[in-house]
Amino acid sequence: MNAIDIIAKKRDGLKLNKDEIDFMINSYTNGDIPDYQMSAFLMAIYLNGMDDYESFLLTDSMLKSGDVLDLSMIDGIKVDKHSTGGVGDKTTLVVGPIVASLGIKVAKMSGRGLGHTGGTIDKLESIPGYNVNLSEDEFIKQIEKIGIAIIGPTKSLAPADKKLYALRDVTATVSSIPLIASSIMSKKLAAGTDVIVLDVKVGSGAFMKTIDDAKKLAELMVSIGKSFNKKVIAMLTDMNDPLGLAIGNNLEVIEAINTLNGKGPKDFTDLCLLASAELIVAAGYAKTVEDATKLAKKQIDNKKALDKFAELVKYQYGDPSYVYEPKKFASAPFIIPIKASKSGYIHKIDALTIGNASMRLGAGRLKLDDKINHRVGILLNKKSGDYVKEGDILAYIHSVKEDNLEIEEMIKKAYLIDESKYSPRLILDVIK
Amino acid sequence: MNAIDIIAKKRDGLKLNKDEIDFMINSYTNGDIPDYQMSAFLMAIYLNGMDDYESFLLTDSMLKSGDVLDLSMIDGIKVDKHSTGGVGDKTTLVVGPIVASLGIKVAKMSGRGLGHTGGTIDKLESIPGYNVNLSEDEFIKQIEKIGIAIIGPTKSLAPADKKLYALRDVTATVSSIPLIASSIMSKKLAAGTDVIVLDVKVGSGAFMKTIDDAKKLAELMVSIGKSFNKKVIAMLTDMNDPLGLAIGNNLEVIEAINTLNGKGPKDFTDLCLLASAELIVAAGYAKTVEDATKLAKKQIDNKKALDKFAELVKYQYGDPSYVYEPKKFASAPFIIPIKASKSGYIHKIDALTIGNASMRLGAGRLKLDDKINHRVGILLNKKSGDYVKEGDILAYIHSVKEDNLEIEEMIKKAYLIDESKYSPRLILDVIK
Repeated sequence: MNAIDIIAKKRDGLKLNKDEIDFMINSYTNGDIPDYQMSAFLMAIYLNGMDDYESFLLTDSMLKSGDVLDLSMIDGIKVDKHSTGGVGDKTTLVVGPIVASLGIKVAKMSGRGLGHTGGTIDKLESIPGYNVNLSEDEFIKQIEKIGIAIIGPTKSLAPADKKLYALRDVTATVSSIPLIASSIMSKKLAAGTDVIVLDVKVGSGAFMKTIDDAKKLAELMVSIGKSFNKKVIAMLTDMNDPLGLAIGNNLEVIEAINTLNGKGPKDFTDLCLLASAELIVAAGYAKTVEDATKLAKKQIDNKKALDKFAELVKYQYGDPSYVYEPKKFASAPFIIPIKASKSGYIHKIDALTIGNASMRLGAGRLKLDDKINHRVGILLNKKSGDYVKEGDILAYIHSVKEDNLEIEEMIKKAYLIDESKYSPRLILDVIK
Repeated sequence: MNAIDIIAKKRDGLKLNKDEIDFMINSYTNGDIPDYQMSAFLMAIYLNGMDDYESFLLTDSMLKSGDVLDLSMIDGIKVDKHSTGGVGDKTTLVVGPIVASLGIKVAKMSGRGLGHTGGTIDKLESIPGYNVNLSEDEFIKQIEKIGIAIIGPTKSLAPADKKLYALRDVTATVSSIPLIASSIMSKKLAAGTDVIVLDVKVGSGAFMKTIDDAKKLAELMVSIGKSFNKKVIAMLTDMNDPLGLAIGNNLEVIEAINTLNGKGPKDFTDLCLLASAELIVAAGYAKTVEDATKLAKKQIDNKKALDKFAELVKYQYGDPSYVYEPKKFASAPFIIPIKASKSGYIHKIDALTIGNASMRLGAGRLKLDDKINHRVGILLNKKSGDYVKEGDILAYIHSVKEDNLEIEEMIKKAYLIDESKYSPRLILDVIK
């Protein structure tokens, strides 16, 4: 077996078998296949695709390139939640505490932000002291003790994916459905939980630009999950607009805390309740999504979810007083309002533009080793569907500089305002 | 401008402009773009193609990656001949001397053999002393003096092609029509002649397996040549069977000498006469291909072509006595006949199999730095169209070993024998 023949086979649109896929992944992971052969292979997959069975084999091979966490010593159902990445997505910070407060075990490894998208562990690091670098052992022990841990990725899980993702990023082979599905699922399966809720984002701020592509990706990941005997639920949710009002690390943690206090923006609260409800049903704590939603709401009303978040922060060496007094979070030195230049209904707040503007303010990274500033970001004042009059404040820039003309212009242009009425739709579909 | 965006553009099936193609080729040649980005780009070109104008731009960019030979100090029309590579193809050794003996200037750089195909300069090195490594200066001076030089490639011409070809070879991106066309044409244009005759091989022993693909490649190369104001003539010729009877270095040089003596195999002689005639017409030495063919035949009959070959050998430090006494070439120690296992008409002698058998005997290379043995090879005794009786000798193996069971079996299987009559066709088309 050799790499050139396998590349040629996929180049010619043929299906690969288990031995061929294992050979490519194993040889690449251990360095026997050079980057230049793998990138030709990735482009051939990008353009000629992979069927469900090949995608399952690819996932399996990447999964087996490293350790698989053994969570069996933790009692009860273990759950995980993953978003394909968006702008203003702080869902994990709310959903994790809600379901953990009910006794469901939340084992969550998150990534850092890159480009226009933020990362959950960057957001958690806004809380002074919060340590995202637990060992796998500490991770498991904390879940046993308090029912939840949220940490950064560990090196031993799916190392093939780590290496492949870095290569895809620089060879224009990221947005391929089988490659995205196998990348996400290999990591999620390696993390060893019984239930996985996936939030597949659709729109300008997401990898998947159309609902058709997002549906294909969701169905493929659910099908891969079933092949491994896991319960996988995929929500399809809008990412043409940012999620909620806050974009930027401190701002997003504050919004998550507000939501755990029952005072979150409607779109974000709705998404958190649905994700929680799907996890609650899948974990067997309720029979219907309606019942589960009521349960989730109760955990907000009785502050048990908020307390669980504070407990999580405390156990991971963060200062829990920030959870109860979010005013303690440092603010940016300059808060600059952006005003509407005409009256009308907001039809869109382009998430990609807002994400890029936030990154340029310093809230995100262009390259993986860039440093971020936790205080800066964008706070939206008006969302899609709202009516605004000329001169109304659309959003606030939280900045370290007084002068942000270019970014102000970007944000203004991100708002699409029209005379006609408009009702945005957040939840597009749920696939199980 | 950055490589990822340009890769993505071709990945999405869009057309590239001059700046984008120049950026990719220049940055790759000088090392700013790594192999892994170029190989993803090559696979995107392989699968999504390039139109004629993009192929012209790619050729132009590769051409300008290095020197372009200035042949202007040589009087008269300068011509070149190129074959896309086949089995038993020693055409240059006959065509070069024929046209040079008429006063047409032949400036020819050839390659070494790789895989199942042989290389002209390997064949010339069968002649003791023959030096293929002239400098560009010596090359030009020799053409001025005797009207012909045949040397190996020089490093300064189209270095981008050299680097790209090595990468294509290991990433399953060789057999792409725009990549082949731009590779051949950038080298031929850099060599600076006025007229180029291309022999595009079609069949099992060639890159182009079908006549349709070969025609597309030929038309593209002729169109690129026209864009550079060059006369380009492309012959489409069969490479399902080996060309002539001899495969292997010494054996092929002897066959070329026999042909210059008017005693060559019919198919090979026909091809040499046509290629010579096309060059003669394009150089303005005859008005029709028929007239030009007569001229070419005359140069064989009056031994002037043979004498020109001897002169070429002498000027490149080879021993010209071998040209007049080909019995001086060393023979292989074992000559083993292969016999027909049934009676019938020969329909095919699979060129790929024969080329691989010859390589395994030691006449060719699997890797570029393998050493070759000039004495070994295969001498066909029967060709397609011939009738054979069971037990007739089909071919002879010239080997350093007495035992060649595996190779004997390969050659036997390469012969397709059937009851029905068959007339092979060598010249399939000529495109100008």
